[in-house]
Amino acid sequence: MFEIPRGTRDFIPDEMVKRRFVEDRLRHIFQSFNYREVQTPTFEHLDLFTAKSGDAVIDEIYAFQDKGGRDLALRPELTAPVMRCYVDKLQMEPKPLKLYYIGNCYRYDRPQKGRYREFMQAGCELIGPSNPEGISELIGLAYTLITDVGVKDISLEIGHIGLLRKILARLSLSDDQSKQLLPLIDKEQFDEIPVLLTDFSLSEGKISEFMEIIQYSRLDILRDFFEGDKGSCSEIDRLENIIDYLGCIIGKDAFTVNMGIVRGLDYYTGVVFEIKAPKLGAEKQICGGGEYQLIGLLGGRETPTSGFALGFDRTILAMEMENIDIPSVSLDYFIIPVSDAELNASLKIASSLRQQNKTVDIDLMRRGIGKALKYASSVHADHAIIIGSHELEQREVTIKNMDTGEQMNVSLKKLVPDVLL
Amino acid sequence: MFEIPRGTRDFIPDEMVKRRFVEDRLRHIFQSFNYREVQTPTFEHLDLFTAKSGDAVIDEIYAFQDKGGRDLALRPELTAPVMRCYVDKLQMEPKPLKLYYIGNCYRYDRPQKGRYREFMQAGCELIGPSNPEGISELIGLAYTLITDVGVKDISLEIGHIGLLRKILARLSLSDDQSKQLLPLIDKEQFDEIPVLLTDFSLSEGKISEFMEIIQYSRLDILRDFFEGDKGSCSEIDRLENIIDYLGCIIGKDAFTVNMGIVRGLDYYTGVVFEIKAPKLGAEKQICGGGEYQLIGLLGGRETPTSGFALGFDRTILAMEMENIDIPSVSLDYFIIPVSDAELNASLKIASSLRQQNKTVDIDLMRRGIGKALKYASSVHADHAIIIGSHELEQREVTIKNMDTGEQMNVSLKKLVPDVLL
Repeated sequence: MFEIPRGTRDFIPDEMVKRRFVEDRLRHIFQSFNYREVQTPTFEHLDLFTAKSGDAVIDEIYAFQDKGGRDLALRPELTAPVMRCYVDKLQMEPKPLKLYYIGNCYRYDRPQKGRYREFMQAGCELIGPSNPEGISELIGLAYTLITDVGVKDISLEIGHIGLLRKILARLSLSDDQSKQLLPLIDKEQFDEIPVLLTDFSLSEGKISEFMEIIQYSRLDILRDFFEGDKGSCSEIDRLENIIDYLGCIIGKDAFTVNMGIVRGLDYYTGVVFEIKAPKLGAEKQICGGGEYQLIGLLGGRETPTSGFALGFDRTILAMEMENIDIPSVSLDYFIIPVSDAELNASLKIASSLRQQNKTVDIDLMRRGIGKALKYASSVHADHAIIIGSHELEQREVTIKNMDTGEQMNVSLKKLVPDVLL
Repeated sequence: MFEIPRGTRDFIPDEMVKRRFVEDRLRHIFQSFNYREVQTPTFEHLDLFTAKSGDAVIDEIYAFQDKGGRDLALRPELTAPVMRCYVDKLQMEPKPLKLYYIGNCYRYDRPQKGRYREFMQAGCELIGPSNPEGISELIGLAYTLITDVGVKDISLEIGHIGLLRKILARLSLSDDQSKQLLPLIDKEQFDEIPVLLTDFSLSEGKISEFMEIIQYSRLDILRDFFEGDKGSCSEIDRLENIIDYLGCIIGKDAFTVNMGIVRGLDYYTGVVFEIKAPKLGAEKQICGGGEYQLIGLLGGRETPTSGFALGFDRTILAMEMENIDIPSVSLDYFIIPVSDAELNASLKIASSLRQQNKTVDIDLMRRGIGKALKYASSVHADHAIIIGSHELEQREVTIKNMDTGEQMNVSLKKLVPDVLL
């Protein structure tokens, strides 16, 4: 017996039906926003990923040398590859450029529910626009992807890394202190933050001001906080526009603002967002993204960019938690030749029906009609076509409705007008 | 600048449209034959592939150790993984089991036209039937996949490894002599084969008998050759049935018999076939398969199996050689707000049209109408919707047909009945 590699999965046909359904819907929604698909190789030069995420990322990357001694890596994410492709091949295209991808990624992680070593990500990059409506539409797209497949119990939160960085700067923390504080903000441990900030000798006034911003994320409080700082105030105006436009796209009640969202402080520059499906527990984040800078680092001409990645597997898990049904696949016809003598005619009829865009199977086991009908029912056939010599002489076949059990004789002329027997 | 790994490719949007079109058609045809999709991991334990193909295969495999010291390999083909999945998870399913796959494979090969280090294969495995109609339908499916996407200039040849092995046995060659002969048969070097066989001290009579079989592949000659050998004669009868049934499925003129087809003598057991697109030159084989045995080797209960793999990239190349057009993708509407003041209304109208299943883009760059129209035309928009404040007051928008240039005012009530502005 050969085993499947740890942390990876086989998808048997019933699971693939579900995955293809979701993939087709995602593709449809991306296209309805005029995003166009790109595909990049499964592996890249390792330094592409360390350039974006630092050397620490190597620990969870499948890295290997090819026979030419090149350091390669199975991609852990798709933004860096897609932007490498952009810098290499698409920089001259008219802007905005709206690119989406759906592909497998790889992380050498401890396997657990909702976390696999090979997993699928869908996502997109918007290259060109810096206006608020650009990021609003992008966030609206992320929300639409998830709600379109039927997932209802989600929360969408909007944050702002640029403003968060400035808020933190006003606290005058050391790098080390920031490193202790950020995880608490990220996990919304609002009881522990004031304790830590007191340890850092911050005044009570500063602490309560900070807590008010992080906990309530109200724009008026932010405006007071940044009074007189023109740059920050115009960022707040822009954020207000983004909220307004996003409300036009998905409705005002579909999201909240959360200034405590901490996502890759070095990488993101402005607005960020996260979509969570609380039913998924520890692995509840199914989508995240925002405004970022990467093109310059990859050797291209710096251009405003934003994007997000959606966890395909977690989206499927969220659908399962909500018992969302997907359309089942059925077979139009299962053909049963009564004996070998009817095989030629049966094969011709099958070909003709397939040319009529029907899905058709034919008994390949030469078993009795009873067993063949049992198999037909196991593959969810709508109709069985029983082809006997007597009926063929009358230029007819018997069609049995597999649901009702009803049988009727149908002329070949009507069923397969183009077949000569 | 970061480079793409040698021998791999990026697919930009225009190429992806073509690839998705072909993939969708393949999927549609597989399903019309009641094949169901399976997906296995991108990498497997290395010994799965050496078990199937011997240690020599390691030279062209991307093999690596994970951080746990396991020997893994990027899959060079998909039959071994799919059959591992079958043995592990699907052995108890009703037979026949018809499985198909579409996925990337990896070979550490010298890159050249039609040969890449990462390439896509589509294929299937038929598990259960040993009757001739089973392999006939399988070959018919392979042929239909390729002709359905429009490729016309192909040759389909049917051979038989079981009979070829017996023919070779009658020549009483040593293993070493067989190794010299087989490549000549495979490459149809009919002038050189008699020279070699003379070197091997075979009689002129034996040589000309052999040449007649290999060159003309006539069943009557085969029957004479095997006269009195009951097992071989019933294999020839079966082959005749297979040819007959295949004729019923795709037409008698769509294929020829070629007893000289040499495919993995250890692996294949009975009928084999190859489909070539001669326009592709050295890399002209786009599909190959046949009846094989593998389940026992993988620890399962031996069951008749047949299957084939289709080179996706070569199929696309063959389409390009024949200048086959694919349906182009267009955008239903490109929305242009005349000023920022119309952004809210524009975003609401875009959302509503998308809910009507339209593909919709909106200008995100705040440029003048002229530049926005130019961009709309570059993304192949069918219509532009120009949204100005005066028209909005009249509860109207202007729709411009991008082909004819015609403009007309349309009421919001008609275009987006559900939108409240």
